[in-house]
Amino acid sequence: MTLPRIGISLGDPGGIGPEIILKSFRRGDALPVAKYVLFGSVSVLEREAREIGLRPFWKAEDGGESDGVRLRECRLDEEPAVRRGPSAENGRASFRYFEEAVAAAGRDEVDAIVTAPVSKASWSLAGLPYRGHTEYLEGLFPGAIMSFWSSRLTVALLSHHRPLVEAVRFVRRDNIVRFLEILGTSLSRVRAGSREFLIAGLNPHAGEAGLLGTEEATEVGPAVEEARRRGMNIRGPLPPDVVFREALDRPERVVVALHHDQGLIPFKLVSFETGVNVTLGLPFVRTSPDHGTAFDIAGRNAADSRSLEEAIRLAAGLVVRPANAALDGKARQTHNRRGV
Amino acid sequence: MTLPRIGISLGDPGGIGPEIILKSFRRGDALPVAKYVLFGSVSVLEREAREIGLRPFWKAEDGGESDGVRLRECRLDEEPAVRRGPSAENGRASFRYFEEAVAAAGRDEVDAIVTAPVSKASWSLAGLPYRGHTEYLEGLFPGAIMSFWSSRLTVALLSHHRPLVEAVRFVRRDNIVRFLEILGTSLSRVRAGSREFLIAGLNPHAGEAGLLGTEEATEVGPAVEEARRRGMNIRGPLPPDVVFREALDRPERVVVALHHDQGLIPFKLVSFETGVNVTLGLPFVRTSPDHGTAFDIAGRNAADSRSLEEAIRLAAGLVVRPANAALDGKARQTHNRRGV
Repeated sequence: MTLPRIGISLGDPGGIGPEIILKSFRRGDALPVAKYVLFGSVSVLEREAREIGLRPFWKAEDGGESDGVRLRECRLDEEPAVRRGPSAENGRASFRYFEEAVAAAGRDEVDAIVTAPVSKASWSLAGLPYRGHTEYLEGLFPGAIMSFWSSRLTVALLSHHRPLVEAVRFVRRDNIVRFLEILGTSLSRVRAGSREFLIAGLNPHAGEAGLLGTEEATEVGPAVEEARRRGMNIRGPLPPDVVFREALDRPERVVVALHHDQGLIPFKLVSFETGVNVTLGLPFVRTSPDHGTAFDIAGRNAADSRSLEEAIRLAAGLVVRPANAALDGKARQTHNRRGV
Repeated sequence: MTLPRIGISLGDPGGIGPEIILKSFRRGDALPVAKYVLFGSVSVLEREAREIGLRPFWKAEDGGESDGVRLRECRLDEEPAVRRGPSAENGRASFRYFEEAVAAAGRDEVDAIVTAPVSKASWSLAGLPYRGHTEYLEGLFPGAIMSFWSSRLTVALLSHHRPLVEAVRFVRRDNIVRFLEILGTSLSRVRAGSREFLIAGLNPHAGEAGLLGTEEATEVGPAVEEARRRGMNIRGPLPPDVVFREALDRPERVVVALHHDQGLIPFKLVSFETGVNVTLGLPFVRTSPDHGTAFDIAGRNAADSRSLEEAIRLAAGLVVRPANAALDGKARQTHNRRGV
């Protein structure tokens, strides 16, 4: 069996990213067996390790076959400096770490990337035109899907960072059909076993036969029919205040939410500490902890690494190929054609 | 101390309403000490009691001072008959029970009414122009507010049974100001102690300074300012995926949700078995269990009475006047002027 190869980008050097990465590796058995490559700066990691009182346990990457944890030094024109707050330097550094990790995944040097938190403010100060990781990935891979995973709930978002009125307008049959196609294909590649999709309606009581809205009949319903014809195991549109309850603690069920808060209100309510953000529809796996840079507690050895550890575990779990050989062959073809 | 006077309407005779009412009273200590008046038909209650194996414990109401549980027989032109399904007769009967309970509260014969579930289908078959209890009450008392209470979360809805696109349009400064005024006044009358209101934004991240929507700046924010000027303890607009987390397990906090599913997705996720529906903005307290007629299990002695018991306990708790006399005086004046 080949070990999964996991790349981890350090995130904003002024936030808690480097600290929680080091903490995740502190306990030898907390993470799955894998080949790990950290994308960052040795100066940042060494400073963090000193502050936490850890001896450096990583080795510089030499390009050869490696075991243990390797650091790929990302070339910067300046030293990231500011702690506990955003800065242009930190924005440029964290973007560079992330960009190199994505490029390495694109060259098949790693199977998955896990991204520690970046600061939207730092990226903005650096003049970067992306809101964050997901927007950069969407630029490279149109159709990329934002999804959220925890032990209690799995949710994929039809749209995310749009005003609600625009998100409502986006609920169109063709958009949903395309979304479900990418979602189903992405997930058929990872983790064997049956999976059921539950799609939420847009309106109270899923429109209640048209009394409380029509999008269920004109947009969501027909898209679900089409997805079913293509072989997807999907139910809905279900009442929004029922669908999450039906998927709670049922790990084989994935809820399709039609807009950002429809999915994130319930997700954050039940999975605040352990949620993982997973970008689907890419040619590789990408996960991320479900929290920000936490500038206010950076450098104080106070950050909690659990969400990052969950993100690393989930990334490793998702790149394991299905055990069934026939499925595996099909999945790989799918992978080659469309990506995860 | 005067005992609270609680009216309970039987709900649809074909559903589980009569059964869960009888079960609630079966254990002597399950309910608060109060004067109870059941609004219904003796024939329906006797049939249910036979089926559950209970001897009748209620007495007919004679108009005099009563103790124990009294039944106010509601005159019907026909006998409600159909079990385990909707019918016009059951719709007429359940409407009559409810209407008499409301009228009794209006005449100050009871302080609160608790309504067992009615069937929208039965009411529709009976030709009634109301969707359910709340819509009838809204007709009598414009500005009535739908709210949901449990030990974990309390949520009031700015709007409820509207298509989402209409609910979004309803998020207007004047509507929110009026809503907050009624909400604050209603709750200042009941249960002493500090209370904090948290209002959700409409858009992802509460609009994120206009990047993801403008309603927070143009509508919600100014309404909150106005409410604060009038003395309301309110924060927001907060990100919708954060605000419920902040109010969870904090019984002094009430979340204002801007549309049906924004509030009911989180509420039903954490309070499915014990949720209580409370109508505010009436001249009396009205609570209701947060479930339907459950026709499929009616008449099988299989229904769970916990949500109704919660509704009765909450109704009794809400009608208790504040202990502080000054507060009490103020609250009564408020009550006389505006209702609960």
